[in-house]
Amino acid sequence: MTSRRELCVIGLGLIGGSVLRAADRAGWTVWGATTSPVDAAAAAGQGCTVEPDVGSALRRAAADDALVLLAVPFTAVEDVLTSVARHAPRCRLTDVVGVKEPVAAAVRRHVVPGTRYVGSHPMAGTSASGWAAGSADLFDGAPWVVSVDGGGDRAVWADRAVWAEVAGLALDCGAHVVPATAAEHDAAAARVSHLPHLLAAVLASVGARGGPLALALGAGSFTDGTRVAASHPELVRAMCEGNRVALVDALDDALGQLGAARAELASTGMVGSTVRAGHLARRAFDASRGGSDRGSVQVDLETPGAMERLRELGRLGARVTALHGTRCQVVL
Amino acid sequence: MTSRRELCVIGLGLIGGSVLRAADRAGWTVWGATTSPVDAAAAAGQGCTVEPDVGSALRRAAADDALVLLAVPFTAVEDVLTSVARHAPRCRLTDVVGVKEPVAAAVRRHVVPGTRYVGSHPMAGTSASGWAAGSADLFDGAPWVVSVDGGGDRAVWADRAVWAEVAGLALDCGAHVVPATAAEHDAAAARVSHLPHLLAAVLASVGARGGPLALALGAGSFTDGTRVAASHPELVRAMCEGNRVALVDALDDALGQLGAARAELASTGMVGSTVRAGHLARRAFDASRGGSDRGSVQVDLETPGAMERLRELGRLGARVTALHGTRCQVVL
Repeated sequence: MTSRRELCVIGLGLIGGSVLRAADRAGWTVWGATTSPVDAAAAAGQGCTVEPDVGSALRRAAADDALVLLAVPFTAVEDVLTSVARHAPRCRLTDVVGVKEPVAAAVRRHVVPGTRYVGSHPMAGTSASGWAAGSADLFDGAPWVVSVDGGGDRAVWADRAVWAEVAGLALDCGAHVVPATAAEHDAAAARVSHLPHLLAAVLASVGARGGPLALALGAGSFTDGTRVAASHPELVRAMCEGNRVALVDALDDALGQLGAARAELASTGMVGSTVRAGHLARRAFDASRGGSDRGSVQVDLETPGAMERLRELGRLGARVTALHGTRCQVVL
Repeated sequence: MTSRRELCVIGLGLIGGSVLRAADRAGWTVWGATTSPVDAAAAAGQGCTVEPDVGSALRRAAADDALVLLAVPFTAVEDVLTSVARHAPRCRLTDVVGVKEPVAAAVRRHVVPGTRYVGSHPMAGTSASGWAAGSADLFDGAPWVVSVDGGGDRAVWADRAVWAEVAGLALDCGAHVVPATAAEHDAAAARVSHLPHLLAAVLASVGARGGPLALALGAGSFTDGTRVAASHPELVRAMCEGNRVALVDALDDALGQLGAARAELASTGMVGSTVRAGHLARRAFDASRGGSDRGSVQVDLETPGAMERLRELGRLGARVTALHGTRCQVVL
């Protein structure tokens, strides 16, 4: 496992720019590239190393044996992977895109067999976008999924080293690492990340259709419920459309429950079961935030079945809070 | 119009307790009563005047000619109105319940013709409840609806004096006054206050049904979107069920839009129109928060048609920011 800690970030928007700042703060050697002249100028203006184009940044990564991190919208992934295949075909690769199965499929199409890829996704963000909106603190305490999908034996061993490097980056950025497969991530993200954006959009529209009086009466519940509708719509669209199958499933769940609430309210005048179920669910969520009272375990990445063990723990909501060599500290 | 500024608050939970503190701070003579021993003890412990029961608080209001404010859950309104009819049948009456037409109907059933009633509703709150959760600052900058429903000529004149007194209380509490009819309030509140609670409940449930991993990945969008699901479920239930007709209408709007998004995503893979419409709506909401650049007007309550003028202005999203004698300063 590498100890050189060099990182090449492609895409210098909110997430990529924040990773670059946080990794730099943690002592990594970092450089980046972006197709956005605004973000490039802003990053360079803060003293960051910005290569003139994506190709040169990737060639430097190949020469220096750096970890490459893709931080572009899902719709730009295919283009950037074409560049990776050309300029750094044997690099260690990760990404921070909000969907994992489609990105992994794109990686398989473009850059196998040379590239060693482990997908990742920090669950952090704001409704703002671009380099200027980022900060080195963005990931403090946030969950950051690092994929534990394994291939054959050799691939698993390769993945394990890259997994540790990507997990180390996430921890260095102040996040805690949640191990999950790409499919598990996408199903969960549809429910807790993509669906919230669509519900916020619908709520904002329903409010606005009530006219100026309704908007004038919008207070805490409306402000909170529509906050992420302020996000850049093209980024939200790309994120949601990239996770189509899992998101349709989550939408069906939401439509079923909302329809049941509507039917109960219209027929019996009551919404108690919907409200109580939601309250219990939110309390479960709050409890899961409240830190651990279920103890912690260690998982050594060099032991057989380590990745499977991490995957099982992740499914229980566990998170890796530290990595010492190959030993993961896992908090339940 | 009275200048004695005496206020009797029935119910000392989050809202009632906050009104009592804010009015006290503004120089009103205030006292309260509650059926909750916990809230009564907490309020008395902070030096507030708490009468031993609702009846004695109302008798004092009748003797002192004080304004009576009902701050109880909708489900308790009928009971308290029975007490009002018995102990203070000719008082000036307002309330801060989250639905206005059903409360107005209950007032007509119980306490006419002696009572002069003007309903109101401060659009403020937190997910906590009870006296301990309240504060004198709760209404700072918040919209506070004061109903402008008028009766016959005499009733309108009577209402106008009570309207000014209730509006003055809201302004003294730091809020701005939004004039609206009870029906307009209920339709708007269904969209921007009651629907957000049901969407938050459904989102929380959909997230929890994704298991511990999904909850572990919940970040900003899930936290914001489910925040009000932490509210006391019986209060949410009472609020939603009290506004049944308007809320079914808002739910149908939300179900229609969410269903359209689902259909578009499943068939074409796109959700752009939903996301863009929500984004524009949220920007309109933000713009409506951003203070006025459309100027202000004065409306004198003593001029003919004043209440109708206020109602028209409220429908445009205007708010009363000050009241000097009978002259309302209205900001567009």
